[in-house]
Amino acid sequence: MPLTAIALNCSLKSREGETSSTDKMIGLIATALAAHDVQFTETIRVVDHDVKPGVTSDEGEGDAWPDIRRRVLAADILIFGTPVWLGQMSSVAKRTVERMDAFLSETDEQGRMPSYGKVAVLAVVGNEDGAHGISADLYQALNDTGWTIPAGAVCYWVGEAMGKTDFKELQAVPEKIRSTATMVASNAAHLARLLKEAPYPGTEG
Amino acid sequence: MPLTAIALNCSLKSREGETSSTDKMIGLIATALAAHDVQFTETIRVVDHDVKPGVTSDEGEGDAWPDIRRRVLAADILIFGTPVWLGQMSSVAKRTVERMDAFLSETDEQGRMPSYGKVAVLAVVGNEDGAHGISADLYQALNDTGWTIPAGAVCYWVGEAMGKTDFKELQAVPEKIRSTATMVASNAAHLARLLKEAPYPGTEG
Amino acid sequence: MPLTAIALNCSLKSREGETSSTDKMIGLIATALAAHDVQFTETIRVVDHDVKPGVTSDEGEGDAWPDIRRRVLAADILIFGTPVWLGQMSSVAKRTVERMDAFLSETDEQGRMPSYGKVAVLAVVGNEDGAHGISADLYQALNDTGWTIPAGAVCYWVGEAMGKTDFKELQAVPEKIRSTATMVASNAAHLARLLKEAPYPGTEG
Amino acid sequence: MPLTAIALNCSLKSREGETSSTDKMIGLIATALAAHDVQFTETIRVVDHDVKPGVTSDEGEGDAWPDIRRRVLAADILIFGTPVWLGQMSSVAKRTVERMDAFLSETDEQGRMPSYGKVAVLAVVGNEDGAHGISADLYQALNDTGWTIPAGAVCYWVGEAMGKTDFKELQAVPEKIRSTATMVASNAAHLARLLKEAPYPGTEG
Repeated sequence: MPLTAIALNCSLKSREGETSSTDKMIGLIATALAAHDVQFTETIRVVDHDVKPGVTSDEGEGDAWPDIRRRVLAADILIFGTPVWLGQMSSVAKRTVERMDAFLSETDEQGRMPSYGKVAVLAVVGNEDGAHGISADLYQALNDTGWTIPAGAVCYWVGEAMGKTDFKELQAVPEKIRSTATMVASNAAHLARLLKEAPYPGTEG
Repeated sequence: MPLTAIALNCSLKSREGETSSTDKMIGLIATALAAHDVQFTETIRVVDHDVKPGVTSDEGEGDAWPDIRRRVLAADILIFGTPVWLGQMSSVAKRTVERMDAFLSETDEQGRMPSYGKVAVLAVVGNEDGAHGISADLYQALNDTGWTIPAGAVCYWVGEAMGKTDFKELQAVPEKIRSTATMVASNAAHLARLLKEAPYPGTEG
Repeated sequence: MPLTAIALNCSLKSREGETSSTDKMIGLIATALAAHDVQFTETIRVVDHDVKPGVTSDEGEGDAWPDIRRRVLAADILIFGTPVWLGQMSSVAKRTVERMDAFLSETDEQGRMPSYGKVAVLAVVGNEDGAHGISADLYQALNDTGWTIPAGAVCYWVGEAMGKTDFKELQAVPEKIRSTATMVASNAAHLARLLKEAPYPGTEG
Repeated sequence: MPLTAIALNCSLKSREGETSSTDKMIGLIATALAAHDVQFTETIRVVDHDVKPGVTSDEGEGDAWPDIRRRVLAADILIFGTPVWLGQMSSVAKRTVERMDAFLSETDEQGRMPSYGKVAVLAVVGNEDGAHGISADLYQALNDTGWTIPAGAVCYWVGEAMGKTDFKELQAVPEKIRSTATMVASNAAHLARLLKEAPYPGTEG
């Protein structure tokens, strides 16, 4: 059964600007997913769209979220990518999960949210420390909104404490990062396939 | 395929003492699991065992962890229960996940930790606020150490801000808590069954 | 010595919309500050201003942050107010602290950020659980960017787990919330006054 | 006015074992405090004492906390040191702050906890990522229990993502770490002195 994956890049910088280190990490996972027969559809640079504040699925005129929401929910796997700022996820990442709050009230007759059966993994990149705290906050927000988290679901890179090196500036991707991306992709593809073939039954009521 | 579940109750109080609110929440999930043909084996009250500080799987003479570790890894589903203190997980809960750090270096030839293919869910109970922050920290620690997190993997109860009511003192379990426990169990059983029948393949390297 | 305080309300809703529960909590602290000879200047509803994504103090044309930044730094005490969504601070709150990242590189010859000597306290309000996790993330972000945190620096209210009551709907403010707001104000005023009279000396290097 | 400082080292390893990287970081701050006329009394290696689980100030026979509590509260400044495990504070650190929960009910007639007027700073050291998440959780736990947090209150070191280098193995302390320790000490000494000379007044109720 063919699967699809999509990525959200929650960088603070517009695509027009410099290349993003977060994109580089997303690329490692996306490439590894291809080896598992998963078609990677696209990366949405969220900051380039007008995702309005709110906790419904459509905040009215000009809101870019309904279209992003539709594209995300059409995929089987979500690669959620965020940079590290002040040791925390970006405000764009926070805005994105905040909009998924609406899933909690969009359940079907078996109590299942629109994200049920879909798998989320993380790509976290920063100059320095923050990846574990961000993973924690994102796992909780994504799991609360119905996403399933496969074993070892994050691939991250940060430099030494208080450093300023960007991931994209590294001459080579460290071997440990590469093997982690490979495992993240293997686990995500396996779990997404199982859940697509046999969806969560939910509850009666 | 028959499945088994086990619970870790990370209360600060010994089993000899008062009944635990955490036990009550664990019981809700365990009962709901029974409806999915999952055999609940036991609840281990961790504080009653001498789990030594450290990050290996055996910290030597008198260490109770090797036996707890064996029993936990023999089950397909882990119900991880913790009370809320200062808005955070208990020190007993922290000690328990800390000992799982060893899983990171206990991988097989396909790079899989001993927890791969096993599912973890949470039971969090406190007088007041803290469940979301605890879920975040526990999802991260458990996922980093190889556990898979099914959709909507926590059942929690806390009272109003700065309150002092215990979950076990409630005259009746709130309907929303009961339905959440039912969904947590349904999702955990479904996912654990899928992963037991078709384990993560891991990677070649 | 006269002191001033300002509040940032990081609600997702525009001031034009419904009254905000966060405003109500800010009001409790602001009123209590008046008893300590602190003049409360204004509440800025951040979502009503175009605070652009980025980590500099001025992200160019149309960026509302430079003006908000100026007003915030003119005060001695900051009341940072946020609602709880998915157990976490709002995306507007995250955007706000993200912009303070710039303080890290705006130090004077003694290595002091523009926020040095200023005191921050929190007003956190939600339907249910999340206040402790939010306090943690906000204390870290605000302290990293130079703010001083007085003893017991948060006044929060959330309802019972998975509930839907708004703070503003309560018939009366719970006595415990009122006394906490009084203590937060007392501690903030005392500390801000000490630091205004005797600023941090910083370091020579 | 002479001030004193004390450190809690929440390493998982006994003092009998290898030297601790956490001790090295504590030493940097303690040395810098000396330049501000602060007498450093001692470092308590908490794991070497039988601090029992619980949330009262004395958990009965054999409990080492009452004596540690007395020594900590006799000092004006607390250096709270913890290693990073799984991106989180150690279980020994968690146990330590958990015992301070009792401060919440040990207020005087002005509502002040025993920790009021005392200043806490952090020393966080690990092989890799986790310092920001730990700072967040510790600031929240320490502030909730009455400690005041000076501007920029943490000195931390962690290596590159997924690395294995220990802080104590570094040939030289990085300049950025050294200057941060100097600033942490300057801010802590200044604030502790102000608060010792002019304690928080608390509230009447």
